[in-house]
Amino acid sequence: VSMEWRQKARTYLDKLAIPRGSLGELLNLAEQLAAIRETLEPSVRHKAVVTMAGDHGVVAEGVSAFPPEVTPQMVANFVAGGAAINVLAEVAGARVYVVDMGVAADLTDLVAAGKILSYKVDYGTRNMAKGPAMSREQAVQALEAGIDVADKLIREGVELLATGDMGIGNTTPSSAILAAFSGLPAEEVTGRGTGITDEVLKNKARTIQRALEINRPDPNDPVDVLAKVGGFEIGGIAGVILGAAYHKIPVVVDGFISSAGALLAKKLAPASVDYMIAAHQSMEYGHRHMLRELGLQPLLNLNLRLGEGTGGALAMNIVESAAQVIGKMLTFEDAGVTPDAPRGE
Amino acid sequence: VSMEWRQKARTYLDKLAIPRGSLGELLNLAEQLAAIRETLEPSVRHKAVVTMAGDHGVVAEGVSAFPPEVTPQMVANFVAGGAAINVLAEVAGARVYVVDMGVAADLTDLVAAGKILSYKVDYGTRNMAKGPAMSREQAVQALEAGIDVADKLIREGVELLATGDMGIGNTTPSSAILAAFSGLPAEEVTGRGTGITDEVLKNKARTIQRALEINRPDPNDPVDVLAKVGGFEIGGIAGVILGAAYHKIPVVVDGFISSAGALLAKKLAPASVDYMIAAHQSMEYGHRHMLRELGLQPLLNLNLRLGEGTGGALAMNIVESAAQVIGKMLTFEDAGVTPDAPRGE
Repeated sequence: VSMEWRQKARTYLDKLAIPRGSLGELLNLAEQLAAIRETLEPSVRHKAVVTMAGDHGVVAEGVSAFPPEVTPQMVANFVAGGAAINVLAEVAGARVYVVDMGVAADLTDLVAAGKILSYKVDYGTRNMAKGPAMSREQAVQALEAGIDVADKLIREGVELLATGDMGIGNTTPSSAILAAFSGLPAEEVTGRGTGITDEVLKNKARTIQRALEINRPDPNDPVDVLAKVGGFEIGGIAGVILGAAYHKIPVVVDGFISSAGALLAKKLAPASVDYMIAAHQSMEYGHRHMLRELGLQPLLNLNLRLGEGTGGALAMNIVESAAQVIGKMLTFEDAGVTPDAPRGE
Repeated sequence: VSMEWRQKARTYLDKLAIPRGSLGELLNLAEQLAAIRETLEPSVRHKAVVTMAGDHGVVAEGVSAFPPEVTPQMVANFVAGGAAINVLAEVAGARVYVVDMGVAADLTDLVAAGKILSYKVDYGTRNMAKGPAMSREQAVQALEAGIDVADKLIREGVELLATGDMGIGNTTPSSAILAAFSGLPAEEVTGRGTGITDEVLKNKARTIQRALEINRPDPNDPVDVLAKVGGFEIGGIAGVILGAAYHKIPVVVDGFISSAGALLAKKLAPASVDYMIAAHQSMEYGHRHMLRELGLQPLLNLNLRLGEGTGGALAMNIVESAAQVIGKMLTFEDAGVTPDAPRGE
């Protein structure tokens, strides 16, 4: 982002009629928004949450507490408006766009009815514990789909994006992506997802370890990592982030799965990280490592571990608040507040 | 609050179409709201931030970085709509009510114009380093004023309140109140307020120590503590909280000064704490002790230290999100999501 606008924003924020720095993270966020949008009055009024859905062949290894049938059932719940992401996005004033990136079910009725967007790459990935999750071409297709979704929404006027995910089993590829890039051992990046037992957790870590050994993803080739141990919705999320960065639009990154997409985006285009806002610290065990790899500080810490974009939606109001702070507050001078002779300084 | 409704709410929340517990603090908050309002569809749509203003005789001891003239200047800024609380409340969908509890300036023009509410107890407190900050009658008057404000707003339909403060020097009485109730030494409860130097910080702690020694507030008599080392706006905040609890309305407690009011409310009526929601962890040094005394966990941690009710306004959207989670989400059964044969559990 523009260092010139960062500097301009900081100089302006220091003049606001508040004790210097007393709005904490809102000021850092306001500076980031100003630098992204290249204005001291960044608008984030038009908001969209993009919830990317996909299935994972690796669930055959018994890595999740839920069966894969739940992925299309939850997509139907999103469409019905009864899911967490629906009600939280409503509070945030954001529209929800559900994208079929690779659900292992026929969703053509929902697509035809205009209820979801279809960029289906395939009916679920292959089992990464036995070979690559997808072909290199499919990985590129997933990334390009996300870029295309961001492009369309931004052309329609969206000023703030948030990413979200739905896909039974998708903490497993997310953990594998983190391990591939960071070099951390499987146990360090593996968590309980939707709520698995100790025994299943051990099996999940072993499965991730096996997937890494069999596929040997090249950490210097993010498309290779996505293809070998990723997921269609994770590639889509990475694409949304890249598209947002290309168009100079801030993008709120939800929890663990979205952060895996963000990590892919960062590896593909390091400057994209300047456009990312980490929504929250997830309860998912490996998320702290993910955020450290991204170099991002999360806004919220509410012990969430749901996905869908729920943390992203919750964080959107904080982002809007930061935009209002820089765009609408008065300075000491404008407000006629005169702390000119501060005592004790 | 009603234990029966707490139980009903928890039972219902466990049926939502999410992995159990995966919405973290939102679920605890939803349970609290349901128990307070005695319904599984608690509404917090009509919101108000009450920003209580007052001045403090103890500023004569040189405890603040700002001169007391800033208090009425900031009240004027609130009225002009250019302050942080105005823009953050707008994002939260909350109205801001500014109350003159004891500003050391004539604000009758703003009162006559209907811009602020007047419950002025006096033109600032007396210097607590030399004697009681106010009389016992004034302390009761301040508390009753707050109760009256809450009563009026709730009768007008407000369903969620947040407290806020404005008053140069008001971290000093807040710290003194904390010390009086907790027995902690002055240095442990004293922070930098609007941003004082090391030297002024030492002077501030000494001033608090002196005020406690001279006045000997009785920790078993909260009105005595308020009278001897409190402030008019702090008493008003305590009253707002008591009024909210009386009417079974949730109240979001902002940062350090609001927590001092909350501590008074808790000491006066221990059950009132069930109606409180701690908005955020303030940067002000003693706030962690304040929250521990209250037994509350803050929702946000954004390094705020401004007051005005800013953290309260920011937290309101989280509270509304929690209300929507319990009021509008579908259960597994309603949504037709069938995780009946969860693997690994």
